[in-house]
Formats: sequence, structure tokens, C-alpha cells
Amino acid sequence: MSDRNRLIYLPVGGAGEIGMNCYVYGYGPEGQERFIIADIGVAFPDMDGQPGVDLILPDVTWLEERRDRIDGIFITHAHEDHVGAVGHLWGRLRAPVYCRRFTAIHAMRKLQEAGHDSEQVNVVKAYPDVVEVGPFRVQFAPVSHSIPEASALVIETDAGRVIHSGDFKIDRNPMVGEAFDEAMWAEIGEAGVLAYICDSTNVFSRNPGRSESQLPEQITELVKNARGMMVATTFASNIARVKTLADAGVAAGRSVCLMGRAMQRMVKAGEEAGVLHDFPATLSPEDALDVPRENLMLIVTGSQGERRAASANLSRGKFLGHELKEGDTFLFSSKTIPGNEVPVAHIQNALAEIGVEIFDDESGFYHVSGHANRPDLEVMHDVLEPQILIPCHGEFRHLREHARLAISKGMAGIVAPNGAVVELSGNAPGVVEHVETGRTYLDGDAFVGQFDGVIRERMKMALNGMVVVALIIDESDEVLEDAWVALKGLPETGSSGAPLQELIEDDLASLLPRLDAKVVEDDEKLEEAVKRVARKVCAQEIGKKPEVTLLVSRLMAD
Amino acid sequence: MSDRNRLIYLPVGGAGEIGMNCYVYGYGPEGQERFIIADIGVAFPDMDGQPGVDLILPDVTWLEERRDRIDGIFITHAHEDHVGAVGHLWGRLRAPVYCRRFTAIHAMRKLQEAGHDSEQVNVVKAYPDVVEVGPFRVQFAPVSHSIPEASALVIETDAGRVIHSGDFKIDRNPMVGEAFDEAMWAEIGEAGVLAYICDSTNVFSRNPGRSESQLPEQITELVKNARGMMVATTFASNIARVKTLADAGVAAGRSVCLMGRAMQRMVKAGEEAGVLHDFPATLSPEDALDVPRENLMLIVTGSQGERRAASANLSRGKFLGHELKEGDTFLFSSKTIPGNEVPVAHIQNALAEIGVEIFDDESGFYHVSGHANRPDLEVMHDVLEPQILIPCHGEFRHLREHARLAISKGMAGIVAPNGAVVELSGNAPGVVEHVETGRTYLDGDAFVGQFDGVIRERMKMALNGMVVVALIIDESDEVLEDAWVALKGLPETGSSGAPLQELIEDDLASLLPRLDAKVVEDDEKLEEAVKRVARKVCAQEIGKKPEVTLLVSRLMAD
Repeated sequence: MSDRNRLIYLPVGGAGEIGMNCYVYGYGPEGQERFIIADIGVAFPDMDGQPGVDLILPDVTWLEERRDRIDGIFITHAHEDHVGAVGHLWGRLRAPVYCRRFTAIHAMRKLQEAGHDSEQVNVVKAYPDVVEVGPFRVQFAPVSHSIPEASALVIETDAGRVIHSGDFKIDRNPMVGEAFDEAMWAEIGEAGVLAYICDSTNVFSRNPGRSESQLPEQITELVKNARGMMVATTFASNIARVKTLADAGVAAGRSVCLMGRAMQRMVKAGEEAGVLHDFPATLSPEDALDVPRENLMLIVTGSQGERRAASANLSRGKFLGHELKEGDTFLFSSKTIPGNEVPVAHIQNALAEIGVEIFDDESGFYHVSGHANRPDLEVMHDVLEPQILIPCHGEFRHLREHARLAISKGMAGIVAPNGAVVELSGNAPGVVEHVETGRTYLDGDAFVGQFDGVIRERMKMALNGMVVVALIIDESDEVLEDAWVALKGLPETGSSGAPLQELIEDDLASLLPRLDAKVVEDDEKLEEAVKRVARKVCAQEIGKKPEVTLLVSRLMAD
Repeated sequence: MSDRNRLIYLPVGGAGEIGMNCYVYGYGPEGQERFIIADIGVAFPDMDGQPGVDLILPDVTWLEERRDRIDGIFITHAHEDHVGAVGHLWGRLRAPVYCRRFTAIHAMRKLQEAGHDSEQVNVVKAYPDVVEVGPFRVQFAPVSHSIPEASALVIETDAGRVIHSGDFKIDRNPMVGEAFDEAMWAEIGEAGVLAYICDSTNVFSRNPGRSESQLPEQITELVKNARGMMVATTFASNIARVKTLADAGVAAGRSVCLMGRAMQRMVKAGEEAGVLHDFPATLSPEDALDVPRENLMLIVTGSQGERRAASANLSRGKFLGHELKEGDTFLFSSKTIPGNEVPVAHIQNALAEIGVEIFDDESGFYHVSGHANRPDLEVMHDVLEPQILIPCHGEFRHLREHARLAISKGMAGIVAPNGAVVELSGNAPGVVEHVETGRTYLDGDAFVGQFDGVIRERMKMALNGMVVVALIIDESDEVLEDAWVALKGLPETGSSGAPLQELIEDDLASLLPRLDAKVVEDDEKLEEAVKRVARKVCAQEIGKKPEVTLLVSRLMAD
């Protein structure tokens, strides 16, 4: 340790994965740094990895232990993978939250829902306004993305200027919200940039990104040609897109109805924050029932195939009184996020079965990405000319490719996955330490650690099925009666045709009387012996070795 | 019923899904038709839908009940989704199997492994040779695909000529195996085609398909430029591709090593069947250890991210003595099948973490599809000019799109998903009946029905966790002692901080003495009462309602 001030960067989530963004900047003498947090988002679980889990949150234990040194939580934009954990984790960090108006509406609601005081959220103005906390001077520099008021963070300390890119694209006409402002970025870059911590999602996309403004013409054409009912889905938070869809509906002489809670909430937030103007009048799903279906356009949630969202509900039959029919048109104005291909195809097949015409982004006409492609990343590299480039917001292959690109352009490109502490100051910037990071699962109302074994146990039950055995041991350590067996997630019969449950009970009945007293006395040994029998029977009968749970009821002497 | 002979088509699997192909053709008076089966394949389970299941097979109950009327099982090619179930289901159908040499090698092995007589497999020659069984005259017409000796079936009855396309593409230079033979197809079409039952996988791909012969130059270039070790993965059954990769290795002065059982087996089968010539000499993984790594090329299994295949093993560290290092090159000469994106990305990230250079099919340089794109489908429509087109091998949206295309070209396009019986003969061909079809799960050695509830129970355990409760009821229907509780897949503590297990035991202890005798006597009522308590405690403590299993041990009077 030394008294020398150092500037560090530590990704807690989002570096080495897409989702669950949470990055830490620290400044001060080693071990006494003051901290700010950039974003505190969630990731979404799946059956493959986290069955039954509701949300994946960053493990903030390291930060919690240093809570008195956190000067603020800065949130770049209102996507769930950036703001989603603020309600769930704020109680463990208890630092003031800073963000712009539109983001604040969401952050406040999340704090409230978690029982915290929404006044912890401070609404700040964009660049050149400055938020000063501890040794940090922070500015929210507007960027275009697929949600309003997205911002990069310009973070100044006495060690120099660091830019945290947030999620961004280069869009000179984003329809809603702020356009790419080259002059502003030139000004920010002029003072000299020590490090640029930069979104890497689309580093493998070789063509320049496309503008939101390329879509309205094609979408309007599609809606005008639609017969029957018109339905379109996109991310609710992509308010520019929602407006383009609604405007297309109006241009085609259709009444517009927003369906799905998130859709209504986001449009309301956009209007409240003053970023959304002239949104067409909309009908409630109920009132929309009075409109002839060929004069109606539904804009609905569920573009990623979410089971409970409006798209899935509509694909399954009547939803809120509305029902799709042959010849209707359904537009996915969205990209399918990797991992969601199967549920999205499921909906498209159900729609095809009804006879609905389906359009999606395969043509390139109906969706543009919200992230900077490789040439756009290079535009930012060239404007800012940072000494150091640290890729974030990407899987490992994205981080590595982006760092390689940076190095090829003469910057110091540093790959820093979650848990890597990078010293940015000093003569030889680089990874100086690794701290423990990870994931916390929100499971119902409970927090479950990634390695607690709870989820592992669930997966083993799902893969192998379960045999439950109950035994009674009397006061003198004799096994009383026979064992009782129940099967869960296993077939009733196997190769012999006899009931599997009875076969296990029979084999246990012949084992138990022969057991050594020392085994019967010892819960663990007894469990081992019972497991062995149950598994052997199952292996013979059904070729599978299930999980076995033994409940031993030891009767006490009165 | 009538005595009139009719010709019917019935997809049992593969129509409305990609995988598990199994199609039936019948000819004769209604209710007395003789049958042939075209293909008998498997689908692959996933954690989302079929946790723990080993394979998904078509439910052949309908066919089994008519077993004495099945004249033959015709297998178009050796992909698992066409031949994979022949071993598991042959015992229930017991009809002779017909296929070409390369396919037969695989079908025979599968019958043997399942304990059946491999001589049930009849090796047949290609068109114009004819197999006559019952009222059917069947020819195997060679098509190009991503495996050798793939064939369409030309099926003649007195009702006319039907073509079952099998999987195919139009490749005039497929490198290994038979090229698209326009003259043969013209000849087949000349006699008049009643119905074409046709692969629909790529109906949404608007550009003409590309030839296998476009790849060697680019792959060779890549291998020549590689530093360090070179690894490439593709489907083992794509023998043309495996040869292209091996040839590229040799051209770059590298020794070639095949890694993964399927890879070695397929090359051997290709040589045995006489379809693969001049395959370079290969080294065993063990001998390859003596070759300097920059002179080595590994061709490995696992292009779809399979956990136990060579690609995944190499991404995790040392495998069979070989270990990847920074600067090595890894080529995915393959497409990622929808649903496998996440495991494939997992491997690519692990490789990126090592510092391996990764190439995949994103560039279009290193892979071509084995299925006919939309313009290629049209080539076949135009050569055969069928009266009826029935799309197969596709999800519902593919079937519908392909039927629509057919109708737009003046054919009768009929969408027939699994279970639809289509009468092809008569004046008004169309769906005349629906029979029950579905899926059977191979789970260990046991067959489990799709709707048996076994898999549902597993998924519920995985999503909700499990509370196991054991109770003892004595001879006079009194609850003896307290309940014993065990938790599986649930956190140990909840909101109160007290052990969840003890809380449930305590609440049960206060409930049980108060229970009405009628409840205690009745297993179902008792279970209901116990469940209610366990779930209530869990809902309060962890916000989750788990599955509950109750084991009641009723002591008998001596």
C-alpha cells in the first residue's frame, strides 16, 4: 500500500457477458479509494442455467463491504440490464443515485417497489452540467441508443478524464431523443482522454450501423399494405420505434392500441420526461374492440417470445378480447436476442398455424440495432483518442476482439473481465488484482448465491428424477416396519414391468434387517446404504440413477 | 369405408417441427391400406422442454397397431433425424428396412446396438433400380445433401407417382457423392407426378444455394495462414466437408488428426461404402502428440456446442493430451442450429479467453447449407411439375410458406402437419382425417410418454423446489411424533432468518394435533393439509410455493 492516489476500474458485471452491467471506478490511496458505481443491472435466467430463478443480480458483496466509501450510483439509461437491480440491491449499498429524468422515472419506481425512498434518486441535467461527488466530477453526455436519454459518463478525477460509454450507437437522426453530437464529443476529447471504457456488443458487425430514421418509410409501407388486423411488437423501451409504429398505423388510417403493461408505461414515461412528443392518441384494449379489425393496429410487448407477454398470448388465442385470424399481419420490429430463438419461433409457428402473415428483421427493413457497429466504434476511438481502451458490455470474445482492434490502432487495449481491477493511473496501466465477483439469484423473494448448491440441486432433480424414502428407527435403533418410497419425475415401471416403487421398497425391505447397527445409528451411512439400493434398482429397471432423499424418523424413548 | 383403393400420406413426425422425421404412405381400400414408412428419425431434447431425456422419438402407436400392414421402412439418408430411431423402434414395427449402402452401415449398427438382427436391413441400389413391396414400387433417386448417398424416394402405386424429396440441395459439384442430376429428374418427372412431398427447411432463404465446391479455396487459404495449432469442427456426417478440411490441412503441410468418435466412424463408413476416396492419411490423437503443433490440424466433433464433444473439451483445457494456446486458430465450418446459440457462444468465449483466433460461418466463406433454398425448391417444382405439393421437413411457418409458394405457381399446396391424413388420390385431394401422433421420450432405458406427467413433474421440481415431509400415523390413526421435513432445491433460510425446515416442522407440529380424524384417515386430505402448511410457510419466508411430497407411514397393528 502507498499513499499515492490511484484511479481504478473494476467491472462487477457486464464484462465477459451481455447483461447485468455494473462497473466501479475508484480514486484515492490503495485501500482507501472512494468509489462510484456505473449502472446496476440485471440479467435474465433460463431453464438451462437457473431454473425457477426470477432475476440474476450482480454479487455486490465486495462493494457492500466498502459501502461507506461509495459516493454515488450513476445510471446511464433505463434498460433493465443497466438499472434493473437498483431496487433489489440499493439497501445493501445505500448510496445516492444519479440519472437523467427518463431513467429516473424507472429508478424511482424500482426503489419504491423495493420499499426504499425514491428521493434517493437525483435527477441530473446532461453535459455540460457536472455532478460532484467525493473526488469525482461526473457529466452525463447524451448518446443515441434504443431508449431515450441514454448517456455516456464523463468521469474526471485528478488522475485524468475517463469516459464510460454506456450503450450507444452513432445515429445522426434517431427520431426520438438526442442525435450523435460530434462537436460535443470533439470538445470532450480535446481535454485529453486517459481511458475509454466502451460498449463492445457489435464489434463483429463490419458495416456501419443504420439510423432509426431509415425505418419509418418501410414500416409505413408495410402497414398500408396490410389487410385484416395489424399487430407489431418491439421492445417497449424503444420509444422511437413505438412512435414509428404508431405513426405508421395512423398513416394507414388505423386506430392504435398499446397492449402490455410495459408498452403503456414506457410511452407514459416518455411523455412525462418530455422526450416524447406528438404520440398519436391511443385506445385501450377494451375500447379497441369496438373498432373494425381492419382499422386497428395493436402495438404489443413480447418481441423476445416471453411466455406471459401480449405477443405470446395473442399467438395462443383470444387475448383481452382480441383474436388473430387468417390474413392478419404480425410484424416483429425487433432482433431476437441469442438464446430466445426457440420461444420466438414458437410464437411465429403458432401465428403461421392461424394463417397470419409474419414479417421480421430478416429483410433488414424493419429493425436497426441500438449498438455501435465496428466502424462506429472506430469513429468514437478517433474522436476521443484515448490512451487506454477497455472493452465492456460484451462476452469474452467481444472484449478480446475490441481490445485487439484498439491495439491495432495504437491504443493500450486492456481486456478486463468481471473481477479484474485495472489501475488506469501510473506508468503501466493494467490489471493489478482480481477480486471475487459473481451472481446472486433472486428466487421468489430470497437471494440465493450462485454456488450455494440450491440451483444445482434443482437441476439434478430435473435431470435425474427423485426417489424419496422414509424410514422409521425405533428407540433401540431397530428399523421399524418397511421403508416407504415415493417417485417424483420417474416412470412408474421399467424393464420388468413391475411397479418401480414396489421394487425399491422390496429391495430395501431385504436390505434393512441385514444392516449393521453402526450403519443404522449413523444418518449419513444409513443414507448411503439406502441410496445405493434405490439407485441400483433404478439403474436396472430404467437405466437411470435418480437423486435420492431419505427422511429418517427416529422415535425417541418417552 | 369403400373398396376403392386410395393413396394416403401421413406425417408422423417432421411436419410442423425440424427433426424426428417419420412419414407414412398407404395404398389400398380405406382401413386395409398397406403401408411403407419413409424415415424414422429422432429429435434432441433440451432442458427447457425435456430435462433429463436422452432422445425424442416419434410416437408410433398408430403404426404399431397396424404392424401387419407395414411392407417396409425406407430410409433416405443417415442423419440422426432420419435414421436415429430405427434401433429403438424397430421392435415395435418389425418391417424390413431398405436403404443405400452408406445409410445401411448406420442402420445396421443401430439395429445391432438395440439387440435386433442387422440383416433386417436391405441394401438397395439407386435409381433406376426398383424395390417392390406390397403395392409399392420404390426407387432411391440420388440427391445432393450434406451426407453421402442421400436419396429422394420415387414411390409408384396404381394411383400414380409420388416423390418424397428427403433432405436435399441442388449442388452440381458436391465434391463427395452425387451431383444434382437434371436429366434423371426430367425423366422421373416425365411420367407425370401426382404429388411431391418436399423439404421446406430453407424456404425463407431467397438466394440460390451455394455449392460445396465453393469452400475448398477459402478454407485452404485460411489454414495456410494459420499460425500455431489449427482446429476445425463440422458435422462428422458431412464427409465432403471433412475431406475439404483434411485436404486443406495437407495443402498447408499439416498432419491431420480426426478427434471424436463420430468423426472417425463417419470417415470409415464413407470409405467402406465406397463413396469417399483419397482421404488423406490421419494420425491418432495419441500419435499426433509427437507432431509439432504448428504442423498439426485437428478435425473435431462438437460444432453445435455439445458438452461432451471434442470442441467443448478442447475449449475447457487439455483433451487427449492436446491443449489450445494463444494464437491457435479454430474454425467452425458449420451453421449453429437454432437453439444451440448459447452453448456454441460458450465455447467461443472459452476459446477467446485462451486467445485462440475464431472463424465461423458469419463471413459466408466457410460453410454452405445442405438444404435447397427457395429458388432451388422452385427448380424442382419446375422439373417435376407435380399436381400436388405437400411441404414437409419444417416448422409450421415453413410448411405454410412453401404451400403458399406452390399455390402461387399453380400447384395444389397442402399444409399437412403431423397427424394429418392426406388422401392424394381421388378428385379432391386434401386432409381427410387426423390421427393421434406425438412424441415418445427415451429416458435412460425407459420410454416415457410426452403427456405421462413424468417430465412435467421434473420441470415443476426444477422451477419450484421441493419440500419432502414424512409423517407417522399409529395403529389408532393418531399422528405419532412430529413431522420430519427435508428441503431440496430451496434456500435454507428466508426473510425471518430462521431455518426454513424448522419453521415448516413447527407449523406442522401445531397443525397435526388439531386435524380432524377424517382428515388423518384419508391420505389425500392429509396430503392437502400438509401441503397447505408447507406452502404457506415458504410463501411467507421465500416468496415461493414449492412442490410438496408427503410420505405417510401408517403403522399396522401387529
